[in-house]
Amino acid sequence: MKMSQLFMPTLREVPAEAVIVSHRLMLRAGLIRKLGNGLYSYLPMGLKAFRKVENIIREEMDNIGALEIKPTVVVPGELWRESGRWDTMGDAMLRVVNRVNQELVVSPTAEEAVTALMRAEISSYKQLPVTVYQINTKYRDEIRPRYGVMRGREFCMKDAYSFHATPESLDITYQEMNKAYRKIFKRCGLTVIPVSADSGAMGGSGSEEFMVESPVGDDTLIICPDCGYAANTEKAACKPDVAVDNEGKPFEKTDLPVESVHCPGVESINDMMEFFKTTSRQFIKVLIYKVHNSELDLSEAPGCRNLERVTGEGMPHYPVSFFGVCIRGDLEVNEAKLAALLKASEVELACEEDVIRLSGAPHGFVGPVGLKDVPIVCDNSVVELKDGNFVANVHDTVTGGSRADYDYLHVEPLRDFTPWITGDIRTVVAGDRCCKCGGEYYSKKGNELGHIFKLGDKYTKVMNMTYLDENGKSQIPIMGCYGIGVDRTLASIIEEHNDENGIIWPMSIAPYQVVIVPVKYSDKMKEISDGLYESLKKSGVEVLLDDRDERPGVKFKDMDLAGIPLRVVVGEKNLPNVEIKLRKESQSSLVPADIACQTVRDIIKREMELYS
Amino acid sequence: MKMSQLFMPTLREVPAEAVIVSHRLMLRAGLIRKLGNGLYSYLPMGLKAFRKVENIIREEMDNIGALEIKPTVVVPGELWRESGRWDTMGDAMLRVVNRVNQELVVSPTAEEAVTALMRAEISSYKQLPVTVYQINTKYRDEIRPRYGVMRGREFCMKDAYSFHATPESLDITYQEMNKAYRKIFKRCGLTVIPVSADSGAMGGSGSEEFMVESPVGDDTLIICPDCGYAANTEKAACKPDVAVDNEGKPFEKTDLPVESVHCPGVESINDMMEFFKTTSRQFIKVLIYKVHNSELDLSEAPGCRNLERVTGEGMPHYPVSFFGVCIRGDLEVNEAKLAALLKASEVELACEEDVIRLSGAPHGFVGPVGLKDVPIVCDNSVVELKDGNFVANVHDTVTGGSRADYDYLHVEPLRDFTPWITGDIRTVVAGDRCCKCGGEYYSKKGNELGHIFKLGDKYTKVMNMTYLDENGKSQIPIMGCYGIGVDRTLASIIEEHNDENGIIWPMSIAPYQVVIVPVKYSDKMKEISDGLYESLKKSGVEVLLDDRDERPGVKFKDMDLAGIPLRVVVGEKNLPNVEIKLRKESQSSLVPADIACQTVRDIIKREMELYS
Repeated sequence: MKMSQLFMPTLREVPAEAVIVSHRLMLRAGLIRKLGNGLYSYLPMGLKAFRKVENIIREEMDNIGALEIKPTVVVPGELWRESGRWDTMGDAMLRVVNRVNQELVVSPTAEEAVTALMRAEISSYKQLPVTVYQINTKYRDEIRPRYGVMRGREFCMKDAYSFHATPESLDITYQEMNKAYRKIFKRCGLTVIPVSADSGAMGGSGSEEFMVESPVGDDTLIICPDCGYAANTEKAACKPDVAVDNEGKPFEKTDLPVESVHCPGVESINDMMEFFKTTSRQFIKVLIYKVHNSELDLSEAPGCRNLERVTGEGMPHYPVSFFGVCIRGDLEVNEAKLAALLKASEVELACEEDVIRLSGAPHGFVGPVGLKDVPIVCDNSVVELKDGNFVANVHDTVTGGSRADYDYLHVEPLRDFTPWITGDIRTVVAGDRCCKCGGEYYSKKGNELGHIFKLGDKYTKVMNMTYLDENGKSQIPIMGCYGIGVDRTLASIIEEHNDENGIIWPMSIAPYQVVIVPVKYSDKMKEISDGLYESLKKSGVEVLLDDRDERPGVKFKDMDLAGIPLRVVVGEKNLPNVEIKLRKESQSSLVPADIACQTVRDIIKREMELYS
Repeated sequence: MKMSQLFMPTLREVPAEAVIVSHRLMLRAGLIRKLGNGLYSYLPMGLKAFRKVENIIREEMDNIGALEIKPTVVVPGELWRESGRWDTMGDAMLRVVNRVNQELVVSPTAEEAVTALMRAEISSYKQLPVTVYQINTKYRDEIRPRYGVMRGREFCMKDAYSFHATPESLDITYQEMNKAYRKIFKRCGLTVIPVSADSGAMGGSGSEEFMVESPVGDDTLIICPDCGYAANTEKAACKPDVAVDNEGKPFEKTDLPVESVHCPGVESINDMMEFFKTTSRQFIKVLIYKVHNSELDLSEAPGCRNLERVTGEGMPHYPVSFFGVCIRGDLEVNEAKLAALLKASEVELACEEDVIRLSGAPHGFVGPVGLKDVPIVCDNSVVELKDGNFVANVHDTVTGGSRADYDYLHVEPLRDFTPWITGDIRTVVAGDRCCKCGGEYYSKKGNELGHIFKLGDKYTKVMNMTYLDENGKSQIPIMGCYGIGVDRTLASIIEEHNDENGIIWPMSIAPYQVVIVPVKYSDKMKEISDGLYESLKKSGVEVLLDDRDERPGVKFKDMDLAGIPLRVVVGEKNLPNVEIKLRKESQSSLVPADIACQTVRDIIKREMELYS
């Protein structure tokens, strides 16, 4: 392609709303233009890079035997009514009623459409497993779209769906997808952080997110620099630790008896720190939780003897139960982790009335001592189960006094109260210790680029998809789903590969692999440039020739902004040599013009290998 | 790809609504499935063929220097308000108001979006001409979608838009597009009928449609078998002819004077034929037309002296005028052609009141004799201008009697009345004579696959797109637009290439070029099949291996239905030979297995050449 034929409108001034580097560079280099709020058009240079990402994804999907299909973007609303998501998707889903009163949806995702498609075709176990995918337009009506294509309203997603007879079969595909995703991001030159929902705290291993670091990321990640463990802050697990005082020394076990102290109005941890003149690490916070559908066996648990255990469909469970949750004063309870520990569908703080009824004290003064009507749950920060024995990790503690306006001093775990169950239920923060290797966590903001997920029978069941198994018995298949945002992946590549002069495309994504810049497009320089252009084109290299009548400085600047990985400058003073330079390096080298074609091809090959 | 890994659900029974062959075969062979009314999902085999079409279009667009872009599918409604089409597009355009009260449109076409995009980037004549295109999802809310993807609601269209400083520049791109379109359809194996709007009857040469024959086509085409002239029935021109009686003899000029005959209730042409016992070819039908914005100079025309000619912006014109239009009794006036002849924006039959006021008679009895208050327009069937002189093509005619319930006999054109203007304004039908060569037209139903169109400044003007010309003066660029329906092209290929057993893909479009069918997938047959499969794959051939445990008859039937152009059967009894057969031929041939790979490649090469 010759620059004079290309449409690459560069910008000097970038709209103020473009705050992140990829958004700014995509506008400046003429890759995208805004058409409306959260709606971006790709221009030729942007689309070429976009297609590279798309094709890498397609190749890796094809490689693991996923089959490409193309459902429509606009789908009947009735499919969403069937799955129940018509009511739960909220206003982010664009709904239309057309002229003949049919409800339509501009697809935000395609579980419904694909399940509907497959249920009509799959009738036998012999057809399973099968994985289909699409790379297609999606729309979510973000209230505040921003950061360019990083969080647009219309976007392109690769979404794959697999159907299986058994969990083992789903697991095989899930693992293949996992590998394919790592390959995709590697080929895109992206450093991704795979974040497993199986973060150590929760059961199952049904979900993994592929994140990239981003100063404007939606998620906060907890990362171990030593072993690479990574998790979302609300899911991360950590190693139990022993509470220390302000000098860093562990609190010592006390023989002093529990002492009740009148402390009216001292309700919060901050109030307590001021009143008792000690670190919050010496406190035990006790919270009464209302727990829904716990599948634990509570028949022997304190205060639970009268609870009815519901049996019938699904696992036996207790519709509602209450627990007293103890955690060190400086930490926060992570409700997702608590729910997982209690095998519950949901947990919520009990209302004041329930708290007083069960503990004898209002919130803020609930204490573990004498708490008999609820099972006590201890975070590992308070009591930990080690080799089958409970071990206290904090001593001589201050806790609520089990009646309004009183606190207890010298409370000794395991002497003054005993947990019914213990576990890791704290919200992990930077500085906590890695659950795997003990390294010190740091945290990062991140954006999700991809997500692989075991759906189970969530959609197949409600949408009545069945197949006949080996014995002719009707069964419900289980599903996996696997998404990657194409636009967001492209923007993230720019976030990772740029400098003050512009984009630095990885060779695998670059819209053009090499640009030939004649210092002046005339005479001998034109002849050499044209010759090299033709021979590179002939050998399949994606080559750009800057044939514009501009000063060399302008051309260099534009090409640096555009991020073309390799530049060949044809200047009179260097002839018969030409100057070859990688965008990502500062040094250039001279090579004879007549072997430049081969040199360029060698460099491209070498660079491509970095991303394979 | 191995058949056992492919998802190609074939159907024995096809829904009754599938009436055309492409719809039936696309369902039967598992290319598409219905997701909703007018909404079809492509399955893997369908999508592969779809992508072949898409890529052929892309290559030919790239070849003429058009640049691919990707605007969003959902676009702001304000763009459509700007162009004025928000009000004129009707209910076929899907409109949504989102949660923050923004009007959005699911694009039915993209003149607005592309003009908005380009007006922000184009500022100088140096940037012109430029052509951009997209291959993207469109939606039109057809009331009665049918024929599968031939007339779906959601569809994929290639739409290109070119911007120019001069009509000459637009014409160059237009001609390049014309050539590219012919190439595209040829590569798709389609016999298209290019239909120019410059059909001889109307001025300009700004539009050409590419049609394919279809029994359920939207359009009726008039085609000359001798010279290839083709036009839409409502635009076709024809050669003037002389009226003949039932024996085929021309009517003779009469010397008899005009005679008034009382014929109460004889209003229609059929009534007249019965009453006067002669062919309708001897009648002259006179219709009073109300004409809007004629740009003809009517200052000397009968009855027009008092008309005000509006000057100012645009061409001088008469907002409203009336004409008496004469045409042979067996023919119909074509209003588009009449409007073109009168350089009018619109023509319509005058209301009864105007007819009586201007002609003295109600409709049905209006005659040309004594018609003085309107200019008389004669179709060439009545009077023709030949070498500067009027010549009558019908004689001794019967016409309305210029008062209610009376007709005239022996009316002789040019003796009893004189036209103010003549021209070809009849609706052409099969049997009429070609305007170019005199051949006898036949007619066909057709579907439009593509359309190239000179838009002029229609969008650039109303959307305020300007550039500075060589002299620094602000100018409005002119545009061309060029569309191809991808789905419809694919369906049309099947319409043209099929037999009673299924699809017969052209090699250029086939989802797979060759299928290997082992009679039994075991032992020596498996070994030979696997070897051939691997070597074909290695040499870049798109090959399918039917590794299913099915009877050979079932495999053959499926592969005939799927339309794979080339089949290699590996059967024990033929070894060491294998049987090679083209889907489109009935004869097979035996070749040694060890040269089968090369033979297949040769055949594919030969076949591909047919479509290049």
